[in-house]
Amino acid sequence: MQPMAAGALCWVDGTRGATLSPFDRGVAFGDGLFETMRFAGTRIPLLDLHLARLARGGARLGIPIDETTLRAEIDAALQDVVAMLPQGVLKLILTRGAGGRGYRAAPDMVPTRVLLASPLPENPPSWTSEGVVVRFCEMRLGANPLLAGIKHLNRLEQVMARREWDDPDIAEGLLADARGRVVEGIATNIFVVSGGRLMTPPIESCGVAGVMREYLVSRGAPALGIPLAEAACERAVLGGAQELFLCNSVIGVWPVRRLAARDLPVGPVTRRIQAHVAALFAA
Amino acid sequence: MQPMAAGALCWVDGTRGATLSPFDRGVAFGDGLFETMRFAGTRIPLLDLHLARLARGGARLGIPIDETTLRAEIDAALQDVVAMLPQGVLKLILTRGAGGRGYRAAPDMVPTRVLLASPLPENPPSWTSEGVVVRFCEMRLGANPLLAGIKHLNRLEQVMARREWDDPDIAEGLLADARGRVVEGIATNIFVVSGGRLMTPPIESCGVAGVMREYLVSRGAPALGIPLAEAACERAVLGGAQELFLCNSVIGVWPVRRLAARDLPVGPVTRRIQAHVAALFAA
Repeated sequence: MQPMAAGALCWVDGTRGATLSPFDRGVAFGDGLFETMRFAGTRIPLLDLHLARLARGGARLGIPIDETTLRAEIDAALQDVVAMLPQGVLKLILTRGAGGRGYRAAPDMVPTRVLLASPLPENPPSWTSEGVVVRFCEMRLGANPLLAGIKHLNRLEQVMARREWDDPDIAEGLLADARGRVVEGIATNIFVVSGGRLMTPPIESCGVAGVMREYLVSRGAPALGIPLAEAACERAVLGGAQELFLCNSVIGVWPVRRLAARDLPVGPVTRRIQAHVAALFAA
Repeated sequence: MQPMAAGALCWVDGTRGATLSPFDRGVAFGDGLFETMRFAGTRIPLLDLHLARLARGGARLGIPIDETTLRAEIDAALQDVVAMLPQGVLKLILTRGAGGRGYRAAPDMVPTRVLLASPLPENPPSWTSEGVVVRFCEMRLGANPLLAGIKHLNRLEQVMARREWDDPDIAEGLLADARGRVVEGIATNIFVVSGGRLMTPPIESCGVAGVMREYLVSRGAPALGIPLAEAACERAVLGGAQELFLCNSVIGVWPVRRLAARDLPVGPVTRRIQAHVAALFAA
């Protein structure tokens, strides 16, 4: 058993401090799903959206999701950590289970449930207040419509893309598909403001349909009366953008103040979205 | 900790029966590599090729490989199991290590070494003697030249492809790239015999460069004086084949006796290759 990350707590199948079987298909094949959720006190503001995406992923991969048990274990974990961590990140990993050999899974496998609690990432506050510097990644996302959209455990593309730079002033890298269309950030989704409208790339043959993206599309932008559409984002579209921002359910919204060599203003649409999202996570 | 597979033994970082940290990047992201090796007694006939591929994968992903330690732990594991299992499969999993959060890895991570020993898979002996029935999979392999060839832990494509059928008489499925060219089997590589020559698809933008494939290309076919070339395999090429066979380092060689609706003869080139490979694993 490896040392545990400092300040972090874990549960496996509801047992605190438990460990994983080396025969788990999560480690063998990345055969599973995850959700990275921000909590405030014992509350996860976007829990319903996280569990809905997990359910979509489970249906896609053929992994049964026991939502009642997951909700109970999430509640218990938050009760357990709240005194130590009044806010932080709860990561849920759900694998197809342990056992067997070979790609074929037994039909009666019992999924493994892992919860990991950790503090909020220590990003510079200016990334939220003044915006971030973003680069284009060289690595292209492979296309697989069967796996696109869901948050599965095959994340080597993201790991490798994140290895492209070391400069701590660059907060995020943008990933394009094989045709060069920007799809997402490594750990974020991207939104473009152009002509007072919001656009975000469709997640069809690659990419993750982030929960914060989903929230903004289905609830946030409509609540603010901002028109929003999915549209393919060639680099030229980004070049003509009035504003750009990145989002996920841990960081909320980061305005983009520089993309590659181009400076961007942090504009009013981004600020309205950002304030709306910040209110979600207010204590 | 999950129940262990029946008849299986495991080691983590050299300790028998140890378990995995839930913070391991192997389970978080599939951030690692594996080798599935057949042993006969305390010998792994293709060990050098397995370790060479692992080293190529480590160089690609930026995971340091300590070959001396790996060889020592493999030797110790085989000494440990030989009384229980005179032959079987030793699977090595090497992850980037445990700890941290997010796609970026700390530069000083210590890789996790997992060894899993299990009996040889219980396939019908006729699959070797008379050949196998094979289908075309509907799922297409996504392209990513950075990840192609190496045996990394992101294997959801293979898991999902194997879910396409349940018929126990179908031994394997063939995977094509986005352009429809056949690249490999789910757990095997494919060779085509045409005009007395051997051909196998190149592994460039997707697929695994199997150790048995490597053995046949670099040593086996030259030793037998059979000309061999890498060539793209449209379905039409397979349709015109005189013989087809599948291989990997666990099963050796399976002649293909039926591909989709077409019956194929099990021919002399396949039989020569098969006998040559069987000799590798003879006690």
